[in-house]
Amino acid sequence: MKRATIPVLTGLMLMTTFTPLHGDEGMWLLNNLPEKYLKETYDFTPTDDWVEHIQKSSVRFSNGGSASFISPNGLVMTNHHVGSDLIQSLSSKESNYMHDGFLAKSPADELKCEGLELNVLMEIRPVTDEVKGVVKPGMSDAEAAAARRAKIAEIETKAGDATGLKPQVVTLYRGARYDLYLYKRYTDVRLVMAPEHGIGFFGGDIDNFGYPRYNLDVAFFRAYEDGKPAKTPHYLKWSEAGISEGDLIFISGHPGSTRRLYTVAHLEFMRDTWLPLVLESYNQREVALQQLAASGAEQARIAAEDMLIIQNGRKAFGGMLAGLLDERVMNMKRAEEARLRGTPKADDAWGRLESALKKIETNYAEHFLLANRRTGLSELYSAAVHLVRSANQRKLPDGERFPEYQDASLPSLELRLFAETPIHDELEQLRLEDGITRVARILGGDHAIAKTLLGGIDPETRAANLLAGTKLRDIAERRRIYEGGLDAINASDDPMIQLAKAMEAYAIPARKHYEDTFESVETGAYADIADARFEKYGEKVYPDATFTLRLSIGTVKGYDLGGEHVDPFTNISGAFQHAEAHDHRDPFALPERWMKRRGKLNGSVPFNFVTTNDIIGGNSGSPMMNRKGELIGIVFDGNIQSLVWDFQFDDRVARSVGVDARAIIEALRSVYEADQLVGEILGGKTLAAAH
Amino acid sequence: MKRATIPVLTGLMLMTTFTPLHGDEGMWLLNNLPEKYLKETYDFTPTDDWVEHIQKSSVRFSNGGSASFISPNGLVMTNHHVGSDLIQSLSSKESNYMHDGFLAKSPADELKCEGLELNVLMEIRPVTDEVKGVVKPGMSDAEAAAARRAKIAEIETKAGDATGLKPQVVTLYRGARYDLYLYKRYTDVRLVMAPEHGIGFFGGDIDNFGYPRYNLDVAFFRAYEDGKPAKTPHYLKWSEAGISEGDLIFISGHPGSTRRLYTVAHLEFMRDTWLPLVLESYNQREVALQQLAASGAEQARIAAEDMLIIQNGRKAFGGMLAGLLDERVMNMKRAEEARLRGTPKADDAWGRLESALKKIETNYAEHFLLANRRTGLSELYSAAVHLVRSANQRKLPDGERFPEYQDASLPSLELRLFAETPIHDELEQLRLEDGITRVARILGGDHAIAKTLLGGIDPETRAANLLAGTKLRDIAERRRIYEGGLDAINASDDPMIQLAKAMEAYAIPARKHYEDTFESVETGAYADIADARFEKYGEKVYPDATFTLRLSIGTVKGYDLGGEHVDPFTNISGAFQHAEAHDHRDPFALPERWMKRRGKLNGSVPFNFVTTNDIIGGNSGSPMMNRKGELIGIVFDGNIQSLVWDFQFDDRVARSVGVDARAIIEALRSVYEADQLVGEILGGKTLAAAH
Repeated sequence: MKRATIPVLTGLMLMTTFTPLHGDEGMWLLNNLPEKYLKETYDFTPTDDWVEHIQKSSVRFSNGGSASFISPNGLVMTNHHVGSDLIQSLSSKESNYMHDGFLAKSPADELKCEGLELNVLMEIRPVTDEVKGVVKPGMSDAEAAAARRAKIAEIETKAGDATGLKPQVVTLYRGARYDLYLYKRYTDVRLVMAPEHGIGFFGGDIDNFGYPRYNLDVAFFRAYEDGKPAKTPHYLKWSEAGISEGDLIFISGHPGSTRRLYTVAHLEFMRDTWLPLVLESYNQREVALQQLAASGAEQARIAAEDMLIIQNGRKAFGGMLAGLLDERVMNMKRAEEARLRGTPKADDAWGRLESALKKIETNYAEHFLLANRRTGLSELYSAAVHLVRSANQRKLPDGERFPEYQDASLPSLELRLFAETPIHDELEQLRLEDGITRVARILGGDHAIAKTLLGGIDPETRAANLLAGTKLRDIAERRRIYEGGLDAINASDDPMIQLAKAMEAYAIPARKHYEDTFESVETGAYADIADARFEKYGEKVYPDATFTLRLSIGTVKGYDLGGEHVDPFTNISGAFQHAEAHDHRDPFALPERWMKRRGKLNGSVPFNFVTTNDIIGGNSGSPMMNRKGELIGIVFDGNIQSLVWDFQFDDRVARSVGVDARAIIEALRSVYEADQLVGEILGGKTLAAAH
Repeated sequence: MKRATIPVLTGLMLMTTFTPLHGDEGMWLLNNLPEKYLKETYDFTPTDDWVEHIQKSSVRFSNGGSASFISPNGLVMTNHHVGSDLIQSLSSKESNYMHDGFLAKSPADELKCEGLELNVLMEIRPVTDEVKGVVKPGMSDAEAAAARRAKIAEIETKAGDATGLKPQVVTLYRGARYDLYLYKRYTDVRLVMAPEHGIGFFGGDIDNFGYPRYNLDVAFFRAYEDGKPAKTPHYLKWSEAGISEGDLIFISGHPGSTRRLYTVAHLEFMRDTWLPLVLESYNQREVALQQLAASGAEQARIAAEDMLIIQNGRKAFGGMLAGLLDERVMNMKRAEEARLRGTPKADDAWGRLESALKKIETNYAEHFLLANRRTGLSELYSAAVHLVRSANQRKLPDGERFPEYQDASLPSLELRLFAETPIHDELEQLRLEDGITRVARILGGDHAIAKTLLGGIDPETRAANLLAGTKLRDIAERRRIYEGGLDAINASDDPMIQLAKAMEAYAIPARKHYEDTFESVETGAYADIADARFEKYGEKVYPDATFTLRLSIGTVKGYDLGGEHVDPFTNISGAFQHAEAHDHRDPFALPERWMKRRGKLNGSVPFNFVTTNDIIGGNSGSPMMNRKGELIGIVFDGNIQSLVWDFQFDDRVARSVGVDARAIIEALRSVYEADQLVGEILGGKTLAAAH
């Protein structure tokens, strides 16, 4: 409920007549950087070595975030909020690392994270011709999609076998280009250090997507190989000089998804069909979590991670909806679209997409409810679905499976499915009860899917019965069923397995229907629209985000809002002032350790700062670097005005928000006395700024 | 998120074969009490004097609650949560009576409540024949409804003029009977005493609808006439003896609405269409209020009253939905219905209702959004709507107006419209922004109603602009426009008035459409269904609740749940134990005054208790009496199992929850040192129990 207004984008219309890009806009592919823009605007030329170094220092977290290596011994830095589900899993009522923070005194004390996988991009190979080549004239959209899917599976399996790396064919420009990405996988990852959640997420939901900020949103992990710290020759060195307003900043990370190439009809579908379902689900879940958290301290602890995810999503998606409800924004998108249309090929693509959207609109709620993850039914139910679905999918030829069940993806699936993460019954009950109620609320109590979920009784009792009867808390039982395949599924009397089996009868046809009537059309149509863009603007346009490695460009820069100037930097003193201004009332209470060691901290050290770099969710934890490729900060947020970046970039008041590298060192030294960690990070350097 | 289960009602099916009533079921009309049941079950015969005394001691709060006179000098007792919007209005940042409580040292210190009206039922006159007599053969449902409405307006105006009382023709049995109720109005009402919200609503949202409980949910007001305490010869005397398990208890109050006579099709409509909209609205608003409240102490204060209403509604409606999703409950309703059906007249009524429901289903969201109150747009917008609508309505003949704008209702409307209650801009912004967003989310961004509300910009800016431009904070300006009528409306450039005017173009046709296609059919059909019930079960069936005076019958009685026995009484010590068990964590922190004076309190005094009396929302604040008509407690809640009472009574585990009168005296004496108030209440009596 920020009082700041969503930016008015109409002023940009004139600027966009001759180029589709605004200022530093762009989530650039590492094999297609905007060299000309960099040269002309910043007098900077990235060398091949510079690019390779950044690429191989960048790390992807399988739970949806970004990170970087910051020492030759596998030390990884990401955000506290990227690591928080792992920190939460490692915590218990007795050792609450989320609340109290954690610091390993030595490597032996580092805590193994279950179910986590880190990926480092080693190589990119273009495969557009191979993938597109399998589509023959006369094929329907669905047939073309099936042919592409089979080809992609074949490319991935071959590359995986040949290199030992994790292969992923990435669909770029929504279908105009395909690249094969090859990743090194790290599956032994351990927690090294995390500050208290109270400073990692200081200001909580209220300050989230706000600025000025004062967050130490960092956590440190270490990648291991063969039981020893991994050797990581490519890592980012800490900048000695720090940064100032106006400096050129690079961000290398994994933006999750954007919809900047969406047509107006597709944005309207988002606004009127998808976002309402998302927000309704998030609101219902948030209210349920608030009740659980208020019922006791331990309940608050176990609800904390779900709450973070839900509140963050509610705010992000709420900001998107507000942007899409603004006619000034939509009119700008309409104008952009009008400039691209006009050729028969492009116009036909727009028409196909619009009619495909109409086709899925009617039953979209079913697809949404059957497919969605974050407000899903429960950990145990999700395990049951994976067991049932993987048993069915593994019977099929590799190229006919859903991508997440193809041979190349099974190791990652198994890592998650067999992870020994804590299951909290009260939280599982909430998720199930809330999830079942939501389905019945949206589809109606007589809908077959609702009836299957309810099983003839009320949601609360149904959830309790499922949880009382299932044996899937036991990882050995999951393994037994997974290895037993379809026979084990069919023989199981586990109520969660039986429910998942019954739900597959709705989920699989709904997914296939969605893929055939919409996704296959979407890919073809957007490929044609992308071609129209290439023709008009050349190849130097960037594709929508795909949770793969991108480089973004920007500068440290304040902004004016409501007649006031917002300085790009905050400092450590500001955190204490912010806490005082809110009477140290939750979520503005600083951790005890900070209050105690206030006198030791240098209050003038820069804490958080804003830049014009183009980012989106998934970029959290991305390293921020100077021209030399040295680390100067870490991305953790965008301000509220940046929420429209999902479908429209604008850098007049929208900003990325980072933690200044200097504050990280200051806090590690003065608050956490983590001298060994600081030594590893700095490698003998001393820092200049503000000391 | 109570873990207790919704009761399984299937066991009742056998019991209900020969009577529609279960045990103490019934919200009885004071002119149609179940004398036979009272005599046979409790050996009790209510005399005319007994009934008249209770009727004239019972008080209705215009904000939706019940109360009673408890002294001859106009002293009124209700729940803290019934009085809380008034306490909130009287509070400020400096004098936060909600948080700190309030006690008037003398009558001169009593605080005048703005916009509040108390009603006392003085007389009931049957007018069924008069109202039904205007319906002529061949009239359409809509014509019949219009004729009835005109007749009702005529009856009310005539009775109001003749008696000086406030007239209300009450539709009973959903249209089978009509009675004219005549009320004495009190419009000068002052706050005498309120405890801290922390003990009035101890356990907050978590314990709400729970049991065991420990709430001092009481507040005291005084009715004034001509600037002096009103003379109220009918008032309830405090019981000296107190009560024990098994005692007969009467509750006299104003249950708001029940749907026990609803057909199965109508319940399915509730489940699949109405409740989903309600809950989505409540969840969205609750999430917005949580954010406002978390942003600062003063914001938490101004959000408190909206939060109470929304959280209470979310829990109540959520419980209803859970009950309706339970096939066991629905099957029971189906069986009941099957027993009533079979005559051509009744079957025809069911058919008419079902097809009318189908007709409104499609555009129901529009009607809902245009008509709903609690998650409405804002105080100032609501004032604008009243100004615009009353200007239009007052141009019409009395009998053609909406009931709330008929001459008999205007004094109550004016009392609210011109009340000097505080307007908080942050809260108004939240309500407007949230309300506009909700409409757009549910109807879609291109819907005409959404577009009118948005005015071409985003919801946040739109709300801010409306609030910046309106002059309706000024009561003199409201009066000027109200008195200026349509001319003043048309001349106004107030953006809130202009928005309300634009919205009337949708609201009025939607309401008329709803009334003509549904409400008029509903009234006729339910009247026929009620006749079928009268034929089968005789006249001793009670009508659905209508926020008019009813008497309910029950006994103090514990219950068994999940293998454990729940004792009917808690005591004062239990409150302290409950706080300790939750580490005194909000909402389980007892007020400072309670902690300090713990040693002075007699911990063994009964605090809260449960009975089998049949109540529903609106009964809050109802006096609970023994056979002698003496006050022994005050209703403030039902347990979670009672939420299905909305459409189905059951008294195996569902219970009403009250504050024991003995705890009220104990707290007033030992915690609040309110000796003068205690003296007025007891009138020289001494209490026996537990002292």
